[in-house]
Amino acid sequence: MLVVKKFGGSSVADRDKIFNVARRCIEDYKAGHDVVVVLSAMGNTTDDLIELAQGINPHAKQREMDMLLTTGEQVSVSLMAMAMQAMDVPAVSLNAFQVMMYSTSRYGNARFKRVDTERIHHELDSRKIVIVTGFQGVNKYDDITTLGRGGSDTTAVALAAVLHADKCEIYTDVDGVYTADPRVVKNARKLDVITYDEMLELASLGAKVLHNRSVEMAKKYNVELVVRSSLNRSEGTTVKEASNMEKLLVTGVAADANTARISVIGVEDKPGIAFRIFDTLAKNNINVDIILQSVGRDGTKDISFTVASGDLEYALKILEDHKERLTIREITHNEEVAKLSVIGAGMMSNPGVAARMFESLYNSRVNINMISTSEIRITVLVAEKDIDKAMNAVHDGFIMSE
Amino acid sequence: MLVVKKFGGSSVADRDKIFNVARRCIEDYKAGHDVVVVLSAMGNTTDDLIELAQGINPHAKQREMDMLLTTGEQVSVSLMAMAMQAMDVPAVSLNAFQVMMYSTSRYGNARFKRVDTERIHHELDSRKIVIVTGFQGVNKYDDITTLGRGGSDTTAVALAAVLHADKCEIYTDVDGVYTADPRVVKNARKLDVITYDEMLELASLGAKVLHNRSVEMAKKYNVELVVRSSLNRSEGTTVKEASNMEKLLVTGVAADANTARISVIGVEDKPGIAFRIFDTLAKNNINVDIILQSVGRDGTKDISFTVASGDLEYALKILEDHKERLTIREITHNEEVAKLSVIGAGMMSNPGVAARMFESLYNSRVNINMISTSEIRITVLVAEKDIDKAMNAVHDGFIMSE
Repeated sequence: MLVVKKFGGSSVADRDKIFNVARRCIEDYKAGHDVVVVLSAMGNTTDDLIELAQGINPHAKQREMDMLLTTGEQVSVSLMAMAMQAMDVPAVSLNAFQVMMYSTSRYGNARFKRVDTERIHHELDSRKIVIVTGFQGVNKYDDITTLGRGGSDTTAVALAAVLHADKCEIYTDVDGVYTADPRVVKNARKLDVITYDEMLELASLGAKVLHNRSVEMAKKYNVELVVRSSLNRSEGTTVKEASNMEKLLVTGVAADANTARISVIGVEDKPGIAFRIFDTLAKNNINVDIILQSVGRDGTKDISFTVASGDLEYALKILEDHKERLTIREITHNEEVAKLSVIGAGMMSNPGVAARMFESLYNSRVNINMISTSEIRITVLVAEKDIDKAMNAVHDGFIMSE
Repeated sequence: MLVVKKFGGSSVADRDKIFNVARRCIEDYKAGHDVVVVLSAMGNTTDDLIELAQGINPHAKQREMDMLLTTGEQVSVSLMAMAMQAMDVPAVSLNAFQVMMYSTSRYGNARFKRVDTERIHHELDSRKIVIVTGFQGVNKYDDITTLGRGGSDTTAVALAAVLHADKCEIYTDVDGVYTADPRVVKNARKLDVITYDEMLELASLGAKVLHNRSVEMAKKYNVELVVRSSLNRSEGTTVKEASNMEKLLVTGVAADANTARISVIGVEDKPGIAFRIFDTLAKNNINVDIILQSVGRDGTKDISFTVASGDLEYALKILEDHKERLTIREITHNEEVAKLSVIGAGMMSNPGVAARMFESLYNSRVNINMISTSEIRITVLVAEKDIDKAMNAVHDGFIMSE
């Protein structure tokens, strides 16, 4: 069996933690498996390096930032090889040049284009544990790129895909994927399995267990992911294709308070106006989420939509600048809102989920502002002050009753 | 003009020092020159990384040590590029992979085999300052090697050689090469020029201004070296071939207290015995320096020689183990000794230097234990307690009188 194991920065933050990871990898190795390990930089190394660079040039070119930041992973992998060698297990560390992990040229946010397997297979064939730097690639100019934050997950999935690994384990500091944030919802429980699509919806809603792009890649190449803790022996959560598993109606409930509502009032009720508004925002790189359009009245209508909190100010400025052209009479906004979503692949074939969600919210006196749905997700906008109560109500209404 | 400039770790130890180096490089750039910069790791980075590794595996494989240590230079070069960019000068950092600096396979002590120039020329042609990691190479397995301590000097000279640079400047924290250690000899003065051979003798005698191998390489490829300070504008010392310069009788006086004397007493006075003694030591990697053999008497003789202090204990053990075979009656040793050397290319054509040196020592009541000479060097062994007095006497006897 060939297994790819990825450990994040907090799992290799010091000597003891490095040896802890080494032991877990050696267990698999001694069971006769081929083991490829992907590591992030130790602890806060990446943040420390960013701070160092900021002190020298706050507008440093991303090419040089990537040259700087990728040293962090090279330190982790060499130390890990030393730890395994100290335990008498042959191990070798490799960086992106040595593996030949080719990426696009875009510094700071590159994507893999081609990953060679020759060197890794050569090392595995001589019965070594192979330890690879996460987060980095090499572009066509022979320059070093990074994949953006959380990119080590993507490195692990890419290696698992090209090596046809039997398993790709993503180790983190939580036991797996939960039905809701356990810090907010006391009845939250760990999921044994979840589909790629559900995981994607959860990841994009801010559940920081897995890097979104790594889930997309796992889905594309059908890599079975396991999210588990580096601190205990819990089995974790398996992310895989839906076909082989019982579809839960709802697998998770997620909240996102990083949202704001904008309403444009009294716009002309004629074709093309809504398009013009959203086109203007899109051209300024502002991502619009839930949209609600009121029924026309007196030849005008009102349109409400949500944007990320960080985009609010800029969005308001743009709308103000184009107020006349967009026939807007008045602009209002509200930052005290939050999104609540339920996610579940079972929804597709199961009407009535929305009704049950609204009932749970009604019973706990939470008012719904706006609604948006996808095939496997229902999102509502509620007042920010209600979000914890709403999460618990919806979570218990679905998850606990199953 | 193409100039290669090398700065050591203390010259790039913090933000201010990095900008200081950036400014000096930019001066040359703005004067229209092509500038290639070679950097060591910042301050104590290399020592810190070694300590980190020691904590994990005191017997770490050198391959992994090299993987670890080379991150230090990658941090320096990327930060330097950022500093230059902050001053609106285009700059690019390159590591050994990117330049393609191929070395032998020997980790921890590799030597350059082939250094490509294509990438550097490409960057220079687009009017960038090129900043290259010192101290590192890539071997035929695509693995990272290091050149050993001081290897950044060798990187600079290798680049100057293949790029046919007009000048290779080695920046350090002293003004140049001195006639003697200024901390010991108050009349010591800076040399304007020195030959490769003189510099080699000085370097191997412990004057730590230049890495020995870098001087050998500079001599081989006729690269003109300039040793100068990164802290001031002093002209420094030029290291070049003797032909074009006035030959000083003596260019420098150097002391080395890292030495010990061993005497083997009462060995059989027949051919081959001396050979057997030194052959036995050589096979155990013990380097023997000055040798003194007494005139035979009663069919036996005494042989004295010096070894590095660190080898003393091991050398004594080996001699003891082979005492009978080597016909040694008694072994004595003395650690309280030091070597004093005068170096000068002018000696070759100028007899009487030794006599003048002995006279200086006699006048200051310093007893000479042993003597050894090369074409451009005379070394004497004296009591360690006398070394400072001896240095001053010999220095003033030669240098000040010229």
